[in-house]
Amino acid sequence: MRPLPQPARESLALAPVLHALGDPVRLELVRRASTSPEATCAVLADGMDVPLSTLTNHWRIMREAGLISMTADGRHRRIRLRADDLRDRFPGLLDPILRLAEPEKDA
Amino acid sequence: MRPLPQPARESLALAPVLHALGDPVRLELVRRASTSPEATCAVLADGMDVPLSTLTNHWRIMREAGLISMTADGRHRRIRLRADDLRDRFPGLLDPILRLAEPEKDA
Repeated sequence: MRPLPQPARESLALAPVLHALGDPVRLELVRRASTSPEATCAVLADGMDVPLSTLTNHWRIMREAGLISMTADGRHRRIRLRADDLRDRFPGLLDPILRLAEPEKDA
Repeated sequence: MRPLPQPARESLALAPVLHALGDPVRLELVRRASTSPEATCAVLADGMDVPLSTLTNHWRIMREAGLISMTADGRHRRIRLRADDLRDRFPGLLDPILRLAEPEKDA
């Protein structure tokens, strides 16, 4: 499994993390990733009516902001929410957002 | 004082709020507004090296997401962070972000 580039924990910054969370599709993908460790992109996006190219862009934004790790596993890409890094770098931020994202049905 | 249009408390949505917070300039303006109630736009942006047209756009994004109220007071615009609305709608969200934004010096 080959990991794709991502920022180190200590260089995670608050504004890009909030930006990466500030989209209904990305918020839902992060929420799903939080309950499905090491799932593939395809599984996490299952049932979402979003074009593949848009999804690819969303994953990139989340990876570059440090929300997720992404590894290439053959033809699949596996996603892991960087929960430990986010909790360490931004105490008190991730869990309220995951909780609030749960019933959020707007777009 | 004439209030500018803004979303009602019950229609605030998480993703647009996070998006509005997901920019270093907006994050700093929100942090300043949290400690300077009813300050003018000009006072809040004091010392920030950002063009006026960009600032105007930032204030609009924050108002439309429901982060701030803006009132026209003659030639001035006064800003109020909608802290009560945000705490009511998104419990546990605002205060960690204000705390984490404090030492955040990146851009």
